[in-house]
Amino acid sequence: MNIFNNIESEVRRYCRAFPTIFTKAEGYKVIDQNGKRYIDFFSGSGSLNYGHNNPAMKQKLLEYISENGIVQGLDMATDAKRNFLKQFYDIILKKRNMDYKLQFPGPTGTNAVEAALKLVRKVTGRNNIACFTNSFHGMTLGALSVSFNASKKVTDKDAMTKFSVTMPFDGFFGEEYNSLNYIENYLKISRAKSDLPAAFILETIQCEGGINIATTGWLRELEKILKAYEVLLIIDDIQAGCGRTGTFFSFETSEIKPDIICLSKSLSGYGLPLALVLIKPELDVWQPGEHSGTFRGNNLAFVTATEALNYWKNNEFSDTIRIKSNIIPQRLSDLVKKYPEIHGKVRGRGFLWGFESNLKNFSVQVARDAFQAGLLIETAGPKNQVLKLMPPLITDEKGLNAGLDILQECLMRNYRKEL
Amino acid sequence: MNIFNNIESEVRRYCRAFPTIFTKAEGYKVIDQNGKRYIDFFSGSGSLNYGHNNPAMKQKLLEYISENGIVQGLDMATDAKRNFLKQFYDIILKKRNMDYKLQFPGPTGTNAVEAALKLVRKVTGRNNIACFTNSFHGMTLGALSVSFNASKKVTDKDAMTKFSVTMPFDGFFGEEYNSLNYIENYLKISRAKSDLPAAFILETIQCEGGINIATTGWLRELEKILKAYEVLLIIDDIQAGCGRTGTFFSFETSEIKPDIICLSKSLSGYGLPLALVLIKPELDVWQPGEHSGTFRGNNLAFVTATEALNYWKNNEFSDTIRIKSNIIPQRLSDLVKKYPEIHGKVRGRGFLWGFESNLKNFSVQVARDAFQAGLLIETAGPKNQVLKLMPPLITDEKGLNAGLDILQECLMRNYRKEL
Amino acid sequence: MNIFNNIESEVRRYCRAFPTIFTKAEGYKVIDQNGKRYIDFFSGSGSLNYGHNNPAMKQKLLEYISENGIVQGLDMATDAKRNFLKQFYDIILKKRNMDYKLQFPGPTGTNAVEAALKLVRKVTGRNNIACFTNSFHGMTLGALSVSFNASKKVTDKDAMTKFSVTMPFDGFFGEEYNSLNYIENYLKISRAKSDLPAAFILETIQCEGGINIATTGWLRELEKILKAYEVLLIIDDIQAGCGRTGTFFSFETSEIKPDIICLSKSLSGYGLPLALVLIKPELDVWQPGEHSGTFRGNNLAFVTATEALNYWKNNEFSDTIRIKSNIIPQRLSDLVKKYPEIHGKVRGRGFLWGFESNLKNFSVQVARDAFQAGLLIETAGPKNQVLKLMPPLITDEKGLNAGLDILQECLMRNYRKEL
Amino acid sequence: MNIFNNIESEVRRYCRAFPTIFTKAEGYKVIDQNGKRYIDFFSGSGSLNYGHNNPAMKQKLLEYISENGIVQGLDMATDAKRNFLKQFYDIILKKRNMDYKLQFPGPTGTNAVEAALKLVRKVTGRNNIACFTNSFHGMTLGALSVSFNASKKVTDKDAMTKFSVTMPFDGFFGEEYNSLNYIENYLKISRAKSDLPAAFILETIQCEGGINIATTGWLRELEKILKAYEVLLIIDDIQAGCGRTGTFFSFETSEIKPDIICLSKSLSGYGLPLALVLIKPELDVWQPGEHSGTFRGNNLAFVTATEALNYWKNNEFSDTIRIKSNIIPQRLSDLVKKYPEIHGKVRGRGFLWGFESNLKNFSVQVARDAFQAGLLIETAGPKNQVLKLMPPLITDEKGLNAGLDILQECLMRNYRKEL
Repeated sequence: MNIFNNIESEVRRYCRAFPTIFTKAEGYKVIDQNGKRYIDFFSGSGSLNYGHNNPAMKQKLLEYISENGIVQGLDMATDAKRNFLKQFYDIILKKRNMDYKLQFPGPTGTNAVEAALKLVRKVTGRNNIACFTNSFHGMTLGALSVSFNASKKVTDKDAMTKFSVTMPFDGFFGEEYNSLNYIENYLKISRAKSDLPAAFILETIQCEGGINIATTGWLRELEKILKAYEVLLIIDDIQAGCGRTGTFFSFETSEIKPDIICLSKSLSGYGLPLALVLIKPELDVWQPGEHSGTFRGNNLAFVTATEALNYWKNNEFSDTIRIKSNIIPQRLSDLVKKYPEIHGKVRGRGFLWGFESNLKNFSVQVARDAFQAGLLIETAGPKNQVLKLMPPLITDEKGLNAGLDILQECLMRNYRKEL
Repeated sequence: MNIFNNIESEVRRYCRAFPTIFTKAEGYKVIDQNGKRYIDFFSGSGSLNYGHNNPAMKQKLLEYISENGIVQGLDMATDAKRNFLKQFYDIILKKRNMDYKLQFPGPTGTNAVEAALKLVRKVTGRNNIACFTNSFHGMTLGALSVSFNASKKVTDKDAMTKFSVTMPFDGFFGEEYNSLNYIENYLKISRAKSDLPAAFILETIQCEGGINIATTGWLRELEKILKAYEVLLIIDDIQAGCGRTGTFFSFETSEIKPDIICLSKSLSGYGLPLALVLIKPELDVWQPGEHSGTFRGNNLAFVTATEALNYWKNNEFSDTIRIKSNIIPQRLSDLVKKYPEIHGKVRGRGFLWGFESNLKNFSVQVARDAFQAGLLIETAGPKNQVLKLMPPLITDEKGLNAGLDILQECLMRNYRKEL
Repeated sequence: MNIFNNIESEVRRYCRAFPTIFTKAEGYKVIDQNGKRYIDFFSGSGSLNYGHNNPAMKQKLLEYISENGIVQGLDMATDAKRNFLKQFYDIILKKRNMDYKLQFPGPTGTNAVEAALKLVRKVTGRNNIACFTNSFHGMTLGALSVSFNASKKVTDKDAMTKFSVTMPFDGFFGEEYNSLNYIENYLKISRAKSDLPAAFILETIQCEGGINIATTGWLRELEKILKAYEVLLIIDDIQAGCGRTGTFFSFETSEIKPDIICLSKSLSGYGLPLALVLIKPELDVWQPGEHSGTFRGNNLAFVTATEALNYWKNNEFSDTIRIKSNIIPQRLSDLVKKYPEIHGKVRGRGFLWGFESNLKNFSVQVARDAFQAGLLIETAGPKNQVLKLMPPLITDEKGLNAGLDILQECLMRNYRKEL
Repeated sequence: MNIFNNIESEVRRYCRAFPTIFTKAEGYKVIDQNGKRYIDFFSGSGSLNYGHNNPAMKQKLLEYISENGIVQGLDMATDAKRNFLKQFYDIILKKRNMDYKLQFPGPTGTNAVEAALKLVRKVTGRNNIACFTNSFHGMTLGALSVSFNASKKVTDKDAMTKFSVTMPFDGFFGEEYNSLNYIENYLKISRAKSDLPAAFILETIQCEGGINIATTGWLRELEKILKAYEVLLIIDDIQAGCGRTGTFFSFETSEIKPDIICLSKSLSGYGLPLALVLIKPELDVWQPGEHSGTFRGNNLAFVTATEALNYWKNNEFSDTIRIKSNIIPQRLSDLVKKYPEIHGKVRGRGFLWGFESNLKNFSVQVARDAFQAGLLIETAGPKNQVLKLMPPLITDEKGLNAGLDILQECLMRNYRKEL
């Protein structure tokens, strides 16, 4: 690891949590330079929903490269891009009766969020953006300004308070007050002051924030309120989208119709950088070139993304996810019961689950031990108190159980230390 | 083109300038679906300095993918990353006696700029950033805030005026005043007010701004002034770096030592998204994870980038560029003389040249005709009055002359229309 | 009026509402150049609580001027100031068991508010100030930034949204939601975000806002919440203080202990400019001269203010106000009943009452007619829908009835027009 | 002094510099409670140009009060105000061929500045205001934002940097560069960026800043530049106006025509709070009541101000000031020569002079001693290195010499200590 320590910036993070050098990967398994194998419950922070080096995508990628398919094309029209547009329209939009235009910003989630924020400000002529407690939307200045607690991470606190206002997420006040009352009252005040926000930006499931889930009823009611006040709704589906929760979009069961949707992470299917902003046609008021970016047309990513969408041609993949995923809450709930002193809480949907324990440093320690035992798993939440389970969607039962076995063992071991 | 018009956002730009569907590419040539071949003087806006589908890199890429090399790893340590770190240290840093730490932000130029701005603010505890007339640094909020005329492109003018101050680039006041006098006087005022900027961010050659070149003397003097006032210097070498001007960094001939250097575009060598922030070790005060990003470790890009650096093992590549590149100013100067009514101005270095004409819409029209005639070329400058010549560095004399022939013909044709 | 029209700025306002030239005044009566007498229910917008040219104060003023007492002394120690300090301490602070330091800012209410805002920011190191719906605190930039709807009045909207956040006043949401729930929830979010406001600034009765009254229970509960979150409380008692509500401070009955209190308007007793900031001793962290102002020691105002405070030596004055003031709500309520089509609402306390009617322009028209009939009365509220009754506290029953007679007649007349 | 120490805020300043209790005053003399007499070279920081308790004004004031003239009238038309308007038009505006509308803001200088800033922003639709190095314009947020080094005095640094930009005053760069070059270059950059400031705000002589004098040529050239760029010019003549420099306005000799002029301090002539904004008629775009303030019509101040203007009916007063004032620079220059080790610098005009010494704490110590010896004198400049001589304009030769004698003695005494 010497060269990493000597040359790479102190900002590096995951190479500290997972201190080895990885070389190869396949499906839900990752291999390091010593040949040790790890079960992956991390999925590149949600960017590998279809597993590592998915064979079908790999095949297409090798062909495209071999035949000198054009790789870098800014936003020029290419064959690869056309195929993706067609596939996305046919398989995702048309089937769901969704009417959206597609914008390709720079190929990362934070770029998609920046484009969305700029657009809602242009459309409405308003500056303020409402975001949520425990939100996370990215690391560039605009995305940071709508991320909770981001101010702790930057010298310039100003951007944090100036461009946005923080609303309570579903459940933030506990059972006592419904956060929607607060939101509606905020809008009442803002309207009286002629100072309504341009939009709300929302993750339906806050992943970095600790697997906080907005219920279907809350989402529907929120959409209704925002419509009444003529405030736009941006869904940041970067981490929870692309099938992670069992449906392609995380909000499908709620039947809401966001004005703008941000996608990235698993969009390319192969871990290649790609991002997408879906825009209701009437909001697509961009001037040509008004938001640009060198890598906004990553053709290799288009090739794999087109193949990835084949998973969604019918309901089979969704159904499989739903069935397999039942294992996770079952086994986690069993752990809660078995080790009551952990005061564990389990929440999630599809292949996105959190196991929370407020025992100090408990979750971080479990994750550390899990790495040693051959499982890659991350923590989330303001105090890293939540173990975040995100196996690739293609993980089979055997893989899930093998990972959960390791987790159970590490939980048990750390639970004993606590006693 | 129907699907692009129907589904893609109005924001699309280059598919309007180059209205065809591209399929394949090789070296300095691009091919569309009708089999028409184009000479590429655009190079993916500077991201294809080594040409399209460079054979050596292609080979490495195919091998890596075939062998299930790990693709997406956030900032985990991987074999591919280790190779790149070693190669970059040996070939770029050590040989030039440069001492820098490497940070991989999200894999686009604007992400690198955002990280740099955040870091200089953290290091200095100051908010204000000085940028330059006609600068362009990217499209996310922080990068926009240091881009000239960016305010014309966003509803929220505030970000533009609040976080930055604009300094005159070399030559901005014409011959009458040296812009450095202005800059030094600005620093005198700022210091008296205890309100010095954290840093200056500078492109040594402004590409989007119209091929404006900071002279060696100006750069050295600027560095001296900033040192005297303890203000940091960020060089944005995203478009002018990676060999574009004949040396790996654009500022090598000036011998300045920037505090921070931003690279992207041609860094991966193959048109794959990758970005890098070079940081003087004493400024590397990041906390682990303080600036993150899902695609900050693009392993496919590491593979090709490692191969690309082999071009710089000795001085041969540099020498070749210098010799070949003489053709460009020669032929452009001939055009200026031959068609004095165009009032052409020629400026540039290495494989980065501008041909300016203030005849209204002239340059845009020439570029449009060039596309029809089989040449991809872009315009730059606040009024798109500058034809920007950026052929891949691997273009041979024959290719350069073929492209310049087309350009000459289109210039002539449009010059006749003007008469 | 020609010279006023020709030379004075278009910004002039009350000379349009009361189109005559006034010459003399005494007690609750004002006389114009034609000898016409007006009953004053306006009291210089609350700056003449003791009536015009109060004889006792007049006497002291004439003596002081005649004897060449020092008039302008910045904040130098003077005899006149010493007397005022002593009197204010003895009669106001000591008797109420209040422990405060006295700061004399520039001699207007807005200057007092600016000083208070600067101080709470200095004390807490926080920037944000919470203000209330329909608040009004003054016309300088800082005071404007905490005034509701102020943004409608200035080009620079930014100051309005950046430095403050708006909280719902008592009753803002109607009966459905208690505004204190909203406030507490806002503080919960802010604390989680490490972004608590420095202070709340509050008028216990919003005068310009339309005679909106914070109930005793609401005030006490608010104080408790702010204490729990360690947020300071500034009471702006500029218009409602100095006896207007029957006690010297408007909040005496609630027994809250504000951290900072702003006074001005009737403080001098004679209509002379004077302002005062009361500061809990532990918050008095000013450096000498850190907030200054040429006229911060208006000695003529000290002379009359010292005399004015004699009204508060015992409870007699308070008692008289209470007894006399009963006439106002009684007669206004009778009007509501008599003319149900006006949908009148009556609210107020002491000598501060509002009569609201949502009939369009009704209140403005009544005030206009009242002027013709010999009564000076102003309107308030976001749509000027509230007739604001503020007779001098020294008005006797005869005077009150005479004014109310005129008001009744004008109400009746306009009510008939409506039918 | 006990009550001051115990009760008054720590913010008090001049009562520390002049530690006694003043009781009476007449002309250029002030008397304390022990009967000690002081020569006044301070003039209430420029608010007593006509001396203390000027007999003619005193007479008018006593009459007005005795006859129950209306005192507080907001901006209602009154007899006293009409007289002032007429007098100001006849004696000041008409005679100088000046065409301005009069706005009465709250009765302090900072209120006048706030009104001026708001108006230029409304007129131009631009936000940014250019102010000058070492400027001082007042203590409310807007005025602070255009005051140099104000940021040192407030927690909220943001207001300081956000709303304004600092330009170099005449001579700021020494002899090497003309500050006007910098200013014009700044405007060139701003125009290219479509970000011109709304206005420049300027004191022709910076009093608090250390008696820095803008030369006539510089003022004319500045006016020409601003016209060319369509940027407005506000002259803050609050301290240097009302005759202080020998003419009523400080800029009369330069013949510039400011767009807006702010007056206060000596406007009332008697030390009573009053302020005035003069506005070119075409810029008077205020809506009625758009900028208000309770004490904006201080009728007692109108009475004395009207009388004060009689001094300017012909040139006699101006001539007398000019002749008498010669004594000051003569005697100060003698001191410079006599005590070369002080490295004294003398500058000023009319009755406004500075004596600068960079010996550490020297000027502050001299002022302290002068107080003991019976002379009130203040220091100015960023390090309080300048003794500021501002005797009332009515001081006779005897008075001037008496004061200068004390100053000379204290200089000598401190100079000896230094040796």
